[in-house]
Amino acid sequence: MAPSQDIDSLAINTIRTLAPDVVQKANSGHPGAPMGCAPMAHVLFSRFIKANPKNPTWLNRDRFVLSNGHGCALLYIMLHLMGYNLSMDDLKQFRQTGSKTPGHPEAGHGIHGIEVTTGPLGQGIASAVGLAIAEAHLAATFNKPGFELVDNNTFVILGDGCMQEGVQAEAASLAGHLQLGKLIALYDDNHIQIDGDTALGFTEDVIARFEAYGWHTQVIADGDHDLEGITKAIEAAKKVTDKPSLIKVRTTIGYGSKNQGEEKVHGAALGEPDIIEVKKKFGFNPEEKFHIPQEVYDFYHKLAKKGSDASEAWDKLFASYAKEFPELHAELTRRMNNKLPDGLLAALPKYTPKDAPVATRKLSEIVLNKIAPILPELIGGSADLTGSNLTRWKGAEDFQPPSTKLGTYAGRYIRFGVREHGMAAICNGIAAYGASIPFGATFFNFISYALGAVRLSALSHEQVLYIMTHDSIGLGEDGPTHQPIETLAEMRAMPNILNFRPADGNETSGSYLVALEARDRPSVLILTRQNLPHLEGSEIEKVRKGAYVLQDQEKAEICFVATGSEVSLAVDTAAELAKEGIKARVVSMPCWELFEEQSLEYKMSVFPDGLPVISIEAMSTFGWDRWAHVCIGIDSFGASGPYKDLYKKFGLVPEVIVQKAKKTLAFYKDRKPDSKLRHPLL
Amino acid sequence: MAPSQDIDSLAINTIRTLAPDVVQKANSGHPGAPMGCAPMAHVLFSRFIKANPKNPTWLNRDRFVLSNGHGCALLYIMLHLMGYNLSMDDLKQFRQTGSKTPGHPEAGHGIHGIEVTTGPLGQGIASAVGLAIAEAHLAATFNKPGFELVDNNTFVILGDGCMQEGVQAEAASLAGHLQLGKLIALYDDNHIQIDGDTALGFTEDVIARFEAYGWHTQVIADGDHDLEGITKAIEAAKKVTDKPSLIKVRTTIGYGSKNQGEEKVHGAALGEPDIIEVKKKFGFNPEEKFHIPQEVYDFYHKLAKKGSDASEAWDKLFASYAKEFPELHAELTRRMNNKLPDGLLAALPKYTPKDAPVATRKLSEIVLNKIAPILPELIGGSADLTGSNLTRWKGAEDFQPPSTKLGTYAGRYIRFGVREHGMAAICNGIAAYGASIPFGATFFNFISYALGAVRLSALSHEQVLYIMTHDSIGLGEDGPTHQPIETLAEMRAMPNILNFRPADGNETSGSYLVALEARDRPSVLILTRQNLPHLEGSEIEKVRKGAYVLQDQEKAEICFVATGSEVSLAVDTAAELAKEGIKARVVSMPCWELFEEQSLEYKMSVFPDGLPVISIEAMSTFGWDRWAHVCIGIDSFGASGPYKDLYKKFGLVPEVIVQKAKKTLAFYKDRKPDSKLRHPLL
Repeated sequence: MAPSQDIDSLAINTIRTLAPDVVQKANSGHPGAPMGCAPMAHVLFSRFIKANPKNPTWLNRDRFVLSNGHGCALLYIMLHLMGYNLSMDDLKQFRQTGSKTPGHPEAGHGIHGIEVTTGPLGQGIASAVGLAIAEAHLAATFNKPGFELVDNNTFVILGDGCMQEGVQAEAASLAGHLQLGKLIALYDDNHIQIDGDTALGFTEDVIARFEAYGWHTQVIADGDHDLEGITKAIEAAKKVTDKPSLIKVRTTIGYGSKNQGEEKVHGAALGEPDIIEVKKKFGFNPEEKFHIPQEVYDFYHKLAKKGSDASEAWDKLFASYAKEFPELHAELTRRMNNKLPDGLLAALPKYTPKDAPVATRKLSEIVLNKIAPILPELIGGSADLTGSNLTRWKGAEDFQPPSTKLGTYAGRYIRFGVREHGMAAICNGIAAYGASIPFGATFFNFISYALGAVRLSALSHEQVLYIMTHDSIGLGEDGPTHQPIETLAEMRAMPNILNFRPADGNETSGSYLVALEARDRPSVLILTRQNLPHLEGSEIEKVRKGAYVLQDQEKAEICFVATGSEVSLAVDTAAELAKEGIKARVVSMPCWELFEEQSLEYKMSVFPDGLPVISIEAMSTFGWDRWAHVCIGIDSFGASGPYKDLYKKFGLVPEVIVQKAKKTLAFYKDRKPDSKLRHPLL
Repeated sequence: MAPSQDIDSLAINTIRTLAPDVVQKANSGHPGAPMGCAPMAHVLFSRFIKANPKNPTWLNRDRFVLSNGHGCALLYIMLHLMGYNLSMDDLKQFRQTGSKTPGHPEAGHGIHGIEVTTGPLGQGIASAVGLAIAEAHLAATFNKPGFELVDNNTFVILGDGCMQEGVQAEAASLAGHLQLGKLIALYDDNHIQIDGDTALGFTEDVIARFEAYGWHTQVIADGDHDLEGITKAIEAAKKVTDKPSLIKVRTTIGYGSKNQGEEKVHGAALGEPDIIEVKKKFGFNPEEKFHIPQEVYDFYHKLAKKGSDASEAWDKLFASYAKEFPELHAELTRRMNNKLPDGLLAALPKYTPKDAPVATRKLSEIVLNKIAPILPELIGGSADLTGSNLTRWKGAEDFQPPSTKLGTYAGRYIRFGVREHGMAAICNGIAAYGASIPFGATFFNFISYALGAVRLSALSHEQVLYIMTHDSIGLGEDGPTHQPIETLAEMRAMPNILNFRPADGNETSGSYLVALEARDRPSVLILTRQNLPHLEGSEIEKVRKGAYVLQDQEKAEICFVATGSEVSLAVDTAAELAKEGIKARVVSMPCWELFEEQSLEYKMSVFPDGLPVISIEAMSTFGWDRWAHVCIGIDSFGASGPYKDLYKKFGLVPEVIVQKAKKTLAFYKDRKPDSKLRHPLL
């Protein structure tokens, strides 16, 4: 049955009847948002979004982000209608193990049209700010008169939940400052959150807040029906090019359900009886499930044709661009193809033990100065700790709206402000846009402010570089509020992320090399405030294995494994032991995760049977039992004081470790230990 | 030399000359904020703050929070002037190891007058919202006509950094909704952050934003001099009782330094030459260091006398209250003394294996229903997941402004909104106020949004209960965006926090018991969405030891250790093995941290030599090598699907674990393993 409705109503009512079916079959999910947001989604997709489902990575496509990701039945339906690689069968497999339609939209897993991962609230709108930054930056970098290669919009739908999250506030404030005119957010103002009416705890004036941020704002009083109003508002928003736009759309959650406008329709299947009534109400056959009228398919496929025409026209434009601007064309092509420029390894500084000691944050700065000029896709900045993180290379230009006279959109240094969570989510958006490698910086301890977004970098396979300085008690006087203890354990336990804690200059260069080559996962560079010596035995390429024997002696009796600043401590301790005739091996482990990926043979060569292993790291020992028989670290919070005092206070000095090594040797005198790798299941 | 200045100027200039000395001696710290905020701090402390340094835990004292905690030289100086337990020698030991004046203000470490830990930006203002909530709640609960026992203000100074943090935005939005009229925040608007002028990235209209939140706002144009303006603004703010107040005070960072108004004065010592000029400028002897004119001491000590008079008057009032309202008096006294009510243990539900399986989140709800009526100090709520976290007990009243008609300030259920980070920081403030035990709830995975504040619960020894449901892939269809993997490793690596993952009803009761008894550290209750059976061998009191032998067989050959939902999986696996004549021990470990605190003897009795141990936990195996020879878990992200499918997908089913157990047994056939506790250094 194809009800006689105008095509817009028919399409919207298709969404409103299909979404409950999708959720009902899974008996899990969120029907309310799809039913309430159907009109704005239909208007966006049918009248505005420029995209080619057959060329889903087209650089200049409009980006759409469903920030209230729990409403993903809506997104999956729209992608199916548009002709993306989501079939009706995929919709029927909603939330089933192994399906292409998981409980929340996951980017980076081969489902086209999903630009960023959403679900954890606030992430979508914040990452959308990153998408818009990437657009503005690439446009300023590559567009030429007559060649508007990059000029897409970023459209967002977000709900009350997103509006309450701090990450949203951080990113929205920065977006206003940055005057990101191509960012257009539709706020699904349905007055309902999980606990009930938003009156329970969310009574701020959202419009006034966004105006305070410098956004352009509009209000649609009847988002359930007023398609023309929504259309005009989006058109008006597109015309405002120096401000991001917020359109508050008053809707009814679960529109059409008997419980519409109530929290009941938010997060559970409606139940068959209600679905039957919904279908009747919208003129659909109540007996028919998963029904999309052919007219609706036809209508959407025609739109898809428009999208593919646009994408093909762009290809032609880009071909002409190749003739007019061959270097820029080659450069953008390289970047779109995720190919690193040549000469990266050659550009990285190398060191010998004769070079003066330097803090790894400073070594990171030296690397950035070397690579920034040859790696134009590198774009990022610090959460207001530039002078401490040392992330701004010489000659860097700020990414700023030209009107501020503080920089331009072609600038690659982003002043994130004291907004760590927003920064990480924005980096996810920049990475998701493509053709850029974003980085964000703060003190390592404050990655804990940003974990919600860092986790999504890992889950979404986004290449983001987190440059985290002040990595331990070695930061000294700032004290325990700023000293990471548990932080590295958390990062190591997180899947699909590389954590580098380099020990010296060569390892810092090597860490950057591997992090830049890792195109499908984020990396954390964990760097000292204090100076470290350059070590005999370190090499850039050795970082690739994650851990390696830095210094050794024939028939070593004991092995130290350490990371970062504690590697030189291990070396010093080994030297002390040598004075007493005790032979020690020193293993440096700049990247735990890479070491785990090595062959068992290689790993056993580093930690062989019979050799007692002592780990040394100036933070929680949690996790180190994996490699070490004895774990030395700090399992309390840190303290405020000059860092050398603190190392002494916490027993991280050769004289204390020498004693522990001797005790360990005594213990294993007659019972040489198995390697920790001698694992029953390996 | 005592310059001839009026006493206010003299006091302010004392701060402005002393702070640089304090920072200079440490050669580390932040002189800019103390110099710029000296006038507002002096006005606050000399004209408004009601406190008794000799009775620093007086319930009805005004609370002062320096949210820009890096400016703590200011706070330490004010506390010294007021006569708190901070001597001039302590000021001279600023930022030195073991001193009472660490790099950022740490609450919970015996330094009186420091209400909450600050330094990590945004935490102070957010915790101050908690202080104000606690005040409003206790006032509504205990005040009677003529007995305004609780009527203090919470004063905050915060800077641009705090203003950019999401946690601040979350808490400020909620504070506006809650109409917390006794919260008065002074915003040190100095236009400078670490990277430079705030124009670089922070150009929002802060006043308009706070008005959008429902705050009362005022502006002081010249915060460097206009003491009367600041005074009048605070007086006006005090008169507005149904809105929190923000007073934007335009100041000059580092006022008096040659680099005043620039970022240079933010975070480094001024240097002796500049300090000499500063002292000259303010009429102080440039040769004299750490100088406080006697007049200033006298002036402040007189204020302290006023404070002690007020505190003594309160003691008398409270004594009269005892006569009029003996029960309320006894109750408040009990709560102020951190004494739990009698009968808690008796109230906790006990279960036998015959009882029907229940999800631990539901068991938690049952506990809350039992204890909420007898534990009136329990106050808290959920970040908009009430129906999922099951944290609202029957008959609970919402904590709401009476004008909303949705509750009263006597209500104990807080609608935090989707504001996880703000929630945790607010809980810190409620705990810091005293006489309450706060709790906050969300999905376990989203504790990662709140870690900045959770860490401060632990560092500050605040008793906060984090009720975290949906604790693993067991949540099912919501998928990897919502399934914790690395989260528990992070929490276990964090010092001074208890993490409970109960396996059944008795363990849930026991976890609450121990968490409530732990008055000086936070606890995390990690709870399932899915039903779990009640286990043979579990008991409430056994939780105290952290881990215990749940089920055993004589001459067990292998040992499983598991937590939460995986304990029953271990039991099932042991039953499968028993069919094949293999004897297994099952250890339940509801709280890793408590187990670590047990005697070696006890621990060895759980994990004896010769017994191979296999850990089972449906998340990252990171850390488990500490106890187990074989670690079974999930070291990738989760997946979206019905939870039973997911357990199968990830090999967390008896048939797979049986195979791993057999391989383990084969491996250890001739080489019985040492207990992991057979540690060289123990």
